[in-house]
Amino acid sequence: MSTETTAARGTTAAESTRVPAPAIRAFIHDALVAVQIPPDDVARVAELMTEADLTGADAHGVFRLPQYVKRVTAGGLNRRPGMIGLYSAVASANHMAVWGGAETLLGTNPLAIGLPAGDGPIVFDMATTVVSYGTVKNYALQGRTMPEGWFINRHDGTPLTDPRRSADGLLLPIGGYKGSGLALMLGLLAGTLNGAAFGREVVDFNADASTETNTGHFIAAIDIARFVPLATFTAEADRHLDDLRASPRLPGFDAIRLPGDRRAECRAERTRDGVPLAPALLDQLDRLAQELRLEPLRRRM
Amino acid sequence: MSTETTAARGTTAAESTRVPAPAIRAFIHDALVAVQIPPDDVARVAELMTEADLTGADAHGVFRLPQYVKRVTAGGLNRRPGMIGLYSAVASANHMAVWGGAETLLGTNPLAIGLPAGDGPIVFDMATTVVSYGTVKNYALQGRTMPEGWFINRHDGTPLTDPRRSADGLLLPIGGYKGSGLALMLGLLAGTLNGAAFGREVVDFNADASTETNTGHFIAAIDIARFVPLATFTAEADRHLDDLRASPRLPGFDAIRLPGDRRAECRAERTRDGVPLAPALLDQLDRLAQELRLEPLRRRM
Repeated sequence: MSTETTAARGTTAAESTRVPAPAIRAFIHDALVAVQIPPDDVARVAELMTEADLTGADAHGVFRLPQYVKRVTAGGLNRRPGMIGLYSAVASANHMAVWGGAETLLGTNPLAIGLPAGDGPIVFDMATTVVSYGTVKNYALQGRTMPEGWFINRHDGTPLTDPRRSADGLLLPIGGYKGSGLALMLGLLAGTLNGAAFGREVVDFNADASTETNTGHFIAAIDIARFVPLATFTAEADRHLDDLRASPRLPGFDAIRLPGDRRAECRAERTRDGVPLAPALLDQLDRLAQELRLEPLRRRM
Repeated sequence: MSTETTAARGTTAAESTRVPAPAIRAFIHDALVAVQIPPDDVARVAELMTEADLTGADAHGVFRLPQYVKRVTAGGLNRRPGMIGLYSAVASANHMAVWGGAETLLGTNPLAIGLPAGDGPIVFDMATTVVSYGTVKNYALQGRTMPEGWFINRHDGTPLTDPRRSADGLLLPIGGYKGSGLALMLGLLAGTLNGAAFGREVVDFNADASTETNTGHFIAAIDIARFVPLATFTAEADRHLDDLRASPRLPGFDAIRLPGDRRAECRAERTRDGVPLAPALLDQLDRLAQELRLEPLRRRM
């Protein structure tokens, strides 16, 4: 079954196959070992990619594996960076224009903020676009139509809802000119401040698998104890979060979800029932297994 | 002429009076001196409030003066804070609910980023809501109807377009749950981290003029020279900004505007032609002049 056929049939997420997380983790592990990523990094990356699948960040899980392998084997990724750190990515490939513009000179430049609270960290992580480009690619793979408001035709500015035509499109920023301005400022912070790629020099990692991307990241760490005792902060944060969770709801909402709640719910459900993978993605992963001479994911379930 | 009458007449911005900036600055100056703000602070505040009027941030200029005076005289503002600093405000009064919620537990918590470039700093400054609450109040003062997408009725979630009914409403966040999550995280950073007000303890400065607001701010300063030489950064930033400005445009856009461009255009036009003030605002300022025994703004033009 080809992606094309799948798309024409209008496959929906409901037709996906449920794959247990350990099978996905092991498959990613074997694929990365096969392309000579160092063992410590393999374990970490397989863990984090599977975590993305479990927590519903479908555009950042095993879905990315064929492309990652392609870039590693084509030389576009340095296998041994020699550094360990916690970081938040800011710049990426360009799929957005500046507000009013028609050329893809800005990325989805995400902003993430994490804070400790009593029940564990609360992590907020958003793209400055309405959706990420990975979501568009995922919709294409599943043959789904996108709602209006995500993507526009770069030639005339009209809505573009067919994800297979993504090359003609521009992702829309959140809040119009606000999201565009935020992506610009984050790009200068994460890219230009680091001597990393921004704007026209960003390597489109979808089209070019062999050039190093020189992707910029911006990281700031704040020591809470320099402001208030950590226990005071987490207790106060809990009080506010409890207030928000318990506040009256608008009609049509079954619950108030704070950053990370949806991920936690999704993680519990997918750990129990498996991660839903679209037929076209399973096909891609079968081809990848064949290339790398691995046992296919389908046979690990 | 009362505000009520003005609103019923459907006054638009076009009927505003053009007032020269120096007259506004002098009037603000005299009003702040009259309520015993220290002279150095008076000059600075009058300058910055007039700058807001000149650059089109109408909701933060002389429009705020009657309320500021009310809070100063009622005791809600500390006249002598004893500290000097550059800062960016993050928390404010609450006019937004958490995503899905119906209670105003979040503010418009803005995020501002400023960077040096060759032609002077580029400053990005956004509310996490589609518009600021000051814009809603300004629309009420001008008797204008708001477009859908700014404000909803907190009882049923339907659009609310009459700014005089703002007490029934909730400001909408940019990007739906994203703007709400960002406002929450910024509130914890700027409020909770500083032992300042957040959530339920935020003082509604519109309703209560006498309680100190304990407003929290979050400020971070980054020394560019620790990353790259300043001249390299500004040259690179200019190159990217020029690329963005010169990029092809979507139909319907006469120019590509970067953060600060609209403010600069507005400033040039208003310096030349004066700042447009709505009749209802001029009435309020006349009453203020009478209370403080000042020469009215109308007679300074």
